[in-house]
Amino acid sequence: MSATPGPIALACRFDAQEWAEWRPALAAALPGDTLVRAGDPDHDPATVEIAIVANPPAGALQRYPRLRLVQSLWAGVDKLLADPTLPADLPIVRMVDPAMNAAMAETALWAVLMLHRGFHVYARQQREGVWQPQAQRRADAVQVGVLGQGQMGGEVSRRLRMLGYRVSGWRRGEPLGPVLASSEILVNLLPLTPHTRGLIDAAVLRQLPRGAALVNLARGAHVVDADLLAALDDGQLGHAVLDVFHQEPLPAGHRFWTHPAVTVLPHVAAQTDAHSAARIVAQNLAAWRRGEALVHQVDRRAGY
Amino acid sequence: MSATPGPIALACRFDAQEWAEWRPALAAALPGDTLVRAGDPDHDPATVEIAIVANPPAGALQRYPRLRLVQSLWAGVDKLLADPTLPADLPIVRMVDPAMNAAMAETALWAVLMLHRGFHVYARQQREGVWQPQAQRRADAVQVGVLGQGQMGGEVSRRLRMLGYRVSGWRRGEPLGPVLASSEILVNLLPLTPHTRGLIDAAVLRQLPRGAALVNLARGAHVVDADLLAALDDGQLGHAVLDVFHQEPLPAGHRFWTHPAVTVLPHVAAQTDAHSAARIVAQNLAAWRRGEALVHQVDRRAGY
Repeated sequence: MSATPGPIALACRFDAQEWAEWRPALAAALPGDTLVRAGDPDHDPATVEIAIVANPPAGALQRYPRLRLVQSLWAGVDKLLADPTLPADLPIVRMVDPAMNAAMAETALWAVLMLHRGFHVYARQQREGVWQPQAQRRADAVQVGVLGQGQMGGEVSRRLRMLGYRVSGWRRGEPLGPVLASSEILVNLLPLTPHTRGLIDAAVLRQLPRGAALVNLARGAHVVDADLLAALDDGQLGHAVLDVFHQEPLPAGHRFWTHPAVTVLPHVAAQTDAHSAARIVAQNLAAWRRGEALVHQVDRRAGY
Repeated sequence: MSATPGPIALACRFDAQEWAEWRPALAAALPGDTLVRAGDPDHDPATVEIAIVANPPAGALQRYPRLRLVQSLWAGVDKLLADPTLPADLPIVRMVDPAMNAAMAETALWAVLMLHRGFHVYARQQREGVWQPQAQRRADAVQVGVLGQGQMGGEVSRRLRMLGYRVSGWRRGEPLGPVLASSEILVNLLPLTPHTRGLIDAAVLRQLPRGAALVNLARGAHVVDADLLAALDDGQLGHAVLDVFHQEPLPAGHRFWTHPAVTVLPHVAAQTDAHSAARIVAQNLAAWRRGEALVHQVDRRAGY
């Protein structure tokens, strides 16, 4: 490395509020570096070796001919990997932040508790002015399937078990049928790859116990929406909690908005915490500059 | 004890469905005993030494002149103790069941996660067709006050800490002001006694940080409803999750039903699990018959 490192390019689709949060967090965590926003006129793109990205537009990194490292601020890098202009050998590090795993686990726990104890049913009853207790079941009688056993799926499974739930975790390559057959609540935390795109379709949904619930906290493209709606309409699926969608924001008029058996969240299951993530970025860059191996480098063939 | 014990009276205000669940559970747990329903004509009340009760009508136990032990199926015995016909020296055992503590903790966790992460806000946004992520905060930045540190308050506090929340527990006799001043979410799990009745009034609510939330899972009579509504109306309180009410079912037309900042639950935070509770009743009765000390005997002066 040179004694005076080149500027670090920030290629992030941030709105003004996000920028006001991230820029100072990154500047504080990287006090020896110069941070430039992609497109800022006051730097030479050829001096940029490192880019910090968050869902950048395709082609955004083409302007940096000497790029040697990409650090994502997002845990999911599916959109980044779909950029055909990205050199195949460019190392990409994805964001793995315990604070983000914790946020994801909070959302999953809230959804599972709601579905298990029927708090979504009581919400409807309140709107209708109905006082009607439902039968209460013990957590250890409720089987939850967790698709994906990586950073987030692992943390979600651990916390669900801590609360007494019966959890069956699933990784790609294992038989899926037994997990589906027993899961009255199915939580999706898979990475989006060519192998998992469209995985949750009619054939998968029909293997769940009748009246089961789906919690999708990963990516909208894991799910075939028409199949999901059909399963909800005919009662095969009792409820769906959806944080992610094929198109975001979820378009006005989409049936998910008003379906009585769908809970819509605006992609908030686990937002990156700027201060926590900036510290992790700084640790990663320091390790890279010392020539150490990159932890959480993306496996381009696996897709995450 | 006599070799052939007298019948055990069941003084329970159960509807047909509850009766169909409880009767076989108790019969299975007490195979050597005869169970009679209060009012059943086929037994001599003078032979009854033990009554198992669940919210019995006042005076219901007067018909048993030789009663020596009352086992409640409910954790809260405030209504039982308010019965002026109850002999002052009659031992009462309240229900302490880990399964019930777990159910209560599930409800408290669900409510705290909802309030912390704004899932109630997203529910409103969904009804309005609005996609608007809210800022996300870490659990360790959220202070939760838990009123009551007995069986249930203790378990709730333990699990909240496990999820990373900052928890300040409160027992009667300790200074309440510091707990109120710091709690953005206040969870009530106190027993209802003459000391705690009406505790949550305007003076208490105004000591909370502006916009705080109240979660009442204990008894409706802990709260002065008019003060609670005033605090919600003027924004001092941001939201209330209420499982219990002065009158239950909550009367039609009560403002709680339709208040946008109130979540109404039909007294379901922790229902007694018949099978688990019946086993605990059997253990208690066996210990009592062996002449052992009663655990969880109600302290009539403390009121719980």
